[in-house]
Amino acid sequence: METVFAATTRKQPKSGKRRICFPITSRAYYGRSQLLIRKLHEHPGIELELMLGGSILLDKYSRHIAGDIEAGGFTITTSLFNVIEGGNHVAMAKTACLTALEFTNGFHAADPDIVVICGDRFEQLAIAMAAAYLNKTIAHIEGGDVTGSIDESVRHAITKLAHLHFVTNDDAQRRVLAMGEDPKYVFNTGSLDVEVAASLTGAITSERLNGYGVGDAIDVARPFALVIQHPVTTEADNGRHLEETLAAVTSLDMPIVWIWPNPDAGTGEMAERLRHFRERSGRASQAMRFITDVPVADFIALLRISSCLIGNSSAGIKECSFLGTPVVNIGARQQGRLHADNVVHVGYERGEIAAAARRQIAHGFYPPSDVYHRAGASDRIVAVLAEVGLYTQKRFCDNTEASVRM
Amino acid sequence: METVFAATTRKQPKSGKRRICFPITSRAYYGRSQLLIRKLHEHPGIELELMLGGSILLDKYSRHIAGDIEAGGFTITTSLFNVIEGGNHVAMAKTACLTALEFTNGFHAADPDIVVICGDRFEQLAIAMAAAYLNKTIAHIEGGDVTGSIDESVRHAITKLAHLHFVTNDDAQRRVLAMGEDPKYVFNTGSLDVEVAASLTGAITSERLNGYGVGDAIDVARPFALVIQHPVTTEADNGRHLEETLAAVTSLDMPIVWIWPNPDAGTGEMAERLRHFRERSGRASQAMRFITDVPVADFIALLRISSCLIGNSSAGIKECSFLGTPVVNIGARQQGRLHADNVVHVGYERGEIAAAARRQIAHGFYPPSDVYHRAGASDRIVAVLAEVGLYTQKRFCDNTEASVRM
Amino acid sequence: METVFAATTRKQPKSGKRRICFPITSRAYYGRSQLLIRKLHEHPGIELELMLGGSILLDKYSRHIAGDIEAGGFTITTSLFNVIEGGNHVAMAKTACLTALEFTNGFHAADPDIVVICGDRFEQLAIAMAAAYLNKTIAHIEGGDVTGSIDESVRHAITKLAHLHFVTNDDAQRRVLAMGEDPKYVFNTGSLDVEVAASLTGAITSERLNGYGVGDAIDVARPFALVIQHPVTTEADNGRHLEETLAAVTSLDMPIVWIWPNPDAGTGEMAERLRHFRERSGRASQAMRFITDVPVADFIALLRISSCLIGNSSAGIKECSFLGTPVVNIGARQQGRLHADNVVHVGYERGEIAAAARRQIAHGFYPPSDVYHRAGASDRIVAVLAEVGLYTQKRFCDNTEASVRM
Amino acid sequence: METVFAATTRKQPKSGKRRICFPITSRAYYGRSQLLIRKLHEHPGIELELMLGGSILLDKYSRHIAGDIEAGGFTITTSLFNVIEGGNHVAMAKTACLTALEFTNGFHAADPDIVVICGDRFEQLAIAMAAAYLNKTIAHIEGGDVTGSIDESVRHAITKLAHLHFVTNDDAQRRVLAMGEDPKYVFNTGSLDVEVAASLTGAITSERLNGYGVGDAIDVARPFALVIQHPVTTEADNGRHLEETLAAVTSLDMPIVWIWPNPDAGTGEMAERLRHFRERSGRASQAMRFITDVPVADFIALLRISSCLIGNSSAGIKECSFLGTPVVNIGARQQGRLHADNVVHVGYERGEIAAAARRQIAHGFYPPSDVYHRAGASDRIVAVLAEVGLYTQKRFCDNTEASVRM
Repeated sequence: METVFAATTRKQPKSGKRRICFPITSRAYYGRSQLLIRKLHEHPGIELELMLGGSILLDKYSRHIAGDIEAGGFTITTSLFNVIEGGNHVAMAKTACLTALEFTNGFHAADPDIVVICGDRFEQLAIAMAAAYLNKTIAHIEGGDVTGSIDESVRHAITKLAHLHFVTNDDAQRRVLAMGEDPKYVFNTGSLDVEVAASLTGAITSERLNGYGVGDAIDVARPFALVIQHPVTTEADNGRHLEETLAAVTSLDMPIVWIWPNPDAGTGEMAERLRHFRERSGRASQAMRFITDVPVADFIALLRISSCLIGNSSAGIKECSFLGTPVVNIGARQQGRLHADNVVHVGYERGEIAAAARRQIAHGFYPPSDVYHRAGASDRIVAVLAEVGLYTQKRFCDNTEASVRM
Repeated sequence: METVFAATTRKQPKSGKRRICFPITSRAYYGRSQLLIRKLHEHPGIELELMLGGSILLDKYSRHIAGDIEAGGFTITTSLFNVIEGGNHVAMAKTACLTALEFTNGFHAADPDIVVICGDRFEQLAIAMAAAYLNKTIAHIEGGDVTGSIDESVRHAITKLAHLHFVTNDDAQRRVLAMGEDPKYVFNTGSLDVEVAASLTGAITSERLNGYGVGDAIDVARPFALVIQHPVTTEADNGRHLEETLAAVTSLDMPIVWIWPNPDAGTGEMAERLRHFRERSGRASQAMRFITDVPVADFIALLRISSCLIGNSSAGIKECSFLGTPVVNIGARQQGRLHADNVVHVGYERGEIAAAARRQIAHGFYPPSDVYHRAGASDRIVAVLAEVGLYTQKRFCDNTEASVRM
Repeated sequence: METVFAATTRKQPKSGKRRICFPITSRAYYGRSQLLIRKLHEHPGIELELMLGGSILLDKYSRHIAGDIEAGGFTITTSLFNVIEGGNHVAMAKTACLTALEFTNGFHAADPDIVVICGDRFEQLAIAMAAAYLNKTIAHIEGGDVTGSIDESVRHAITKLAHLHFVTNDDAQRRVLAMGEDPKYVFNTGSLDVEVAASLTGAITSERLNGYGVGDAIDVARPFALVIQHPVTTEADNGRHLEETLAAVTSLDMPIVWIWPNPDAGTGEMAERLRHFRERSGRASQAMRFITDVPVADFIALLRISSCLIGNSSAGIKECSFLGTPVVNIGARQQGRLHADNVVHVGYERGEIAAAARRQIAHGFYPPSDVYHRAGASDRIVAVLAEVGLYTQKRFCDNTEASVRM
Repeated sequence: METVFAATTRKQPKSGKRRICFPITSRAYYGRSQLLIRKLHEHPGIELELMLGGSILLDKYSRHIAGDIEAGGFTITTSLFNVIEGGNHVAMAKTACLTALEFTNGFHAADPDIVVICGDRFEQLAIAMAAAYLNKTIAHIEGGDVTGSIDESVRHAITKLAHLHFVTNDDAQRRVLAMGEDPKYVFNTGSLDVEVAASLTGAITSERLNGYGVGDAIDVARPFALVIQHPVTTEADNGRHLEETLAAVTSLDMPIVWIWPNPDAGTGEMAERLRHFRERSGRASQAMRFITDVPVADFIALLRISSCLIGNSSAGIKECSFLGTPVVNIGARQQGRLHADNVVHVGYERGEIAAAARRQIAHGFYPPSDVYHRAGASDRIVAVLAEVGLYTQKRFCDNTEASVRM
């Protein structure tokens, strides 16, 4: 076996700059990373390469996103179609593998100093693995949290592959250290999502909202509830759980804006139930609008004025902690996550969901919390990425004062 | 997107047994797991499916192994060629991805209750990821150790995906708990490798040894040194490091048995230097024999009688702790790992290696250590796999009494 | 590089039977191959293994199909999710590659004597390539036809990889011979599609039809037109072409049953236009029903009673030639194909389509044609597959009497 | 399913030039295409992108080649490791699929007007398939020949996907036309290999020859035979066939230069027999040298002075027809190919091979033949690629005057 690292001619000289590859695989990651991306792009010591793959290339709003990105003058070096259809666990696992295989080629061609991994989506672990095997320094944003679903495993496994950790709260910092990461490289910067939410103060008009998706017209001047329920990939009953939520919210005397579930394993049966519900028109007495996606500015504007957010989106835990929006969090997906007073946890049963929603709507908005908020999150991350000493060989760091319970 | 879990007709009924998939991707894993495999196979409550992939299908001795496996009456359900040539990091990363993609199909067809993941090879993390995404319970053997190279990251990332942990020593147990695993599912069983070493008490003859590999004849009745130096995938100088070791051992006044490096990233340049050395015949004054592999029984027999083991094999740390064989451990690969008195650590420089080897040879054998040894390792693992309650949703478990240093 | 053909234990003894692998990747192939599959399954000298992959696993009716298949006692040995999302050419090319990669493993495990390749879908060429590289004898059904779109290239390339050719008409036979195939192995058996159509004489009720899909109720006792327009993957204007057809058929004074386009490159923009049309409800004055699929028996029943078939489905050329249904064939997809008098060819312009449709509806049914029909197609194919001498090394056979125009 | 053609930012404007992608997957293709590549690169109306994949990245001489390419100022846009280890048919099929999957991404990023496909190697068909599915115009060099092995199927299948055909002789032209290609796009330009051979008139010294490979020194001033025997992928006995050739040539009273087999399915067992032969040193009485590769200039120089070329290389048929070198062609690999008087065909039996070799050596050099030679092959190809009207929709063209024998 001969070792050859054949290079492509096109590889650019780094000219003293740090080259940073930022793989983006979902619109949510693009939305919450906007400030960070802009600041990385503008930093004189950094060469930023955006790499797109996964579901971000498939959604309606990726056109919008692609436009945004190019308008921003950013460099997209790679654009890879690698989502395998099926909406089930087999498709999810194979999508992760294919994504990582293709990003390997992208990383090899780009030869970055740092690869930035966001959050806890299944394909991000695969991409982190590929980057680790290529001996790249990996920066992980938003490690150390505790949640339900496969995200819980994915997030901590990424932590054990990553070299630089940007956590969003004290609990997360403590866990990342317990897991053996070097305190020198663990930075509690607060949440990028919340920083974006704090920076976006515009309002949304009814006209604009009704330009998205299908269904009834919504009047933003009157109270409405927002529903976002994603599949929990480690559970088998996503379809039934969605039916419960559907029953709960149609029992509320309030218009509903429903944001379509993410394209993860289990989404198929959820989408099918939503489509059947829509075909049986006339069933809901209140106005309902179904939206596959909104740009992040409009999304934050919606959170700001919703009477209640119902479902299992992380926005309920993070963005809404800062905005004060009342949240009914359903089931296991966000279970165990640090949250502010605005969140009420319920199970999957329709009666419990509806009762909690009524209480939260009656309560109204909560005071803003800083549990996930620190000023200057993106500035701090950029400063570390630009200046910290880089390393690749990890070593378990014993931070626990010999007091582990065995 | 429609959710369909189309099954193949051939899937067997489980008939009340636990079905366990055991992916084996290197001869080393097969060697050290022999007792475990036999006992899993013979357990009345377990249906064992061996799945082969990666380098085990490519080595000369895989024929031997395949024969062994079928002679043992074991079931090989899957046999997948998925090693990408190149001997570099790109090939390593893509091999991991392709392996996991193909094992996903295998797991989907087999529908196991438990997937067993061994050790810390790069493709095992990818396989563990696939199993996790398919919602399988993952059992990990030999987590919690500390070493150098990419193995350090791989091992801990697997821990964060796994549900059942079989560790080999107290330090490892402490680390797995610090990382947030549930104490109920962490079992310190001692090392399977050492159990196999303890069980294999046969000797090797010169005739048998000289039937392996190429080069000069070795007389096992006279002192000889054994060399095993694998590539360190996170380092760039594997070729130069090998030259140093070659210079060191050819300065010893003793025959040398050299076992060929593993086929990981960096192996190409190591193999090339060894081949060049061999072509320039007559350079070494002592007898030298080069072997690509030996069956595990003969390997243990060699360790038992070598005057010194030189290199960076884990056998020096684990098997030799029990056998008492003097070891000169070179460089970062095993760095930080718990070891007994028989191991001396050195850097990559030829003079340092040669001096340490001379001292170890002069010292002779050490008393056996139980640092990695507990009686009945394989029996304990089988008992847990057969009886423990299975779960899939993980949750970070705080075992550190709130005393993490921040 | 060592050569090892590691086998899986599960491979069954062939016990003197010919083992035939039949990869099925679309519902259309399953529909038209029903008689053939049943007869292969029942033949005492044949062991049939059905392998499923591609879009057949993703459609609503695959549940139905999977049920059918297992109810028939057939053996599905492989079930592979390998459709890459995107609905564009990149996704199409990568889907073909991934499909073939995975079927390679399936063929390796099954070790068939013959692989049956149907038709001219893009993934079938990839599967044929894999089978050829594994040295399997390849039987191709329906080679030698001339059409538009990428199918034209795919079909002839499969011919040049295949060893046994089952063509459906004299023109096709002549072309397969011109391309250098051995006359001994070219069999003009007529079309399986037409044989199935001839064998299915049942009717469809309104109730049954309205159980499929969404939209208005259709009364089968009154005249209606059927529309099937698939993407032409070699053209850029699929969306616009669909708009033209939509305009044409909504100008007819007749209810419309519209069967959803196939999931090939270009389908995305077609589906989007259909969905927009549906959301703008009330636009069409006549009843319209949209169906993603019907079982083959009901499909044939629909063809039998439609006043006109409009679009570019091969059913218009083949099944309808035998049934006498008037057909307006649009654009390049079926261009150049042998057809009976029942077909009128038009371009993509709405006026031309509508005018032709009105003329065909006024004309009414045509006398049945045997241009694609020979009695006993499936029996003849089974007999050849069971008894013909098998070979793998192909050789260009000069059938042209030295008179090629140069 | 949404259709999105997300582009990467880096895609260059074409600025009125034709962009041509040239995938190179073996050193042989690079060697024979040198003149063509240089002229494409220098043409003012063409933008040439070289894409490397497959075995060319794995061989010792790829370093040399990579140096050459960059020294020539050529642009390598893609460099992909995608050879799957195993040396068997499974690895071959999966390598083809993975190669095509990765080149799809490369073609999508490059967006060429034309993709150039060379010859008949298995991965080239896969790459041609990918290019066809992306709607690219495909130019095929060296179609229409007849040979043995899987190459025969591969070559003609590529013809049926390609749009522009550059054939090397009259027989090939006649076959490409019989297969239904449009005469307007079929160009008989003679062979690039022979053009390169004709242009390389330098000699090789003993010193230079003995700098390649391992084994005994060869004196180029004295008669020697050259052996090149590649695996025949459609045959099972490659190892045994190699033994026969080995026995035959060691019975000749002449030094032997043996060029290592290509890394195709079957190469494993051939390489193993050669290695065993070398380990049993002293067996051959004459000098033998084993070379894995030589640059093309030295290869042609060797052909010019070898007393006889023994084996199954296409160089025996093509380059040697022009050079007059006596050739003993063994077995099925080149069977049926047009050849000049310099070639004698034999089976695999050692006696037959040795007898033929002795007769050819005694005969000495033949007069040069122009059977594969036309002046200006590369110039003509470049002119067509630069100026011909491009199309993508193929259509079977009936060139046979209705006289096919049925």
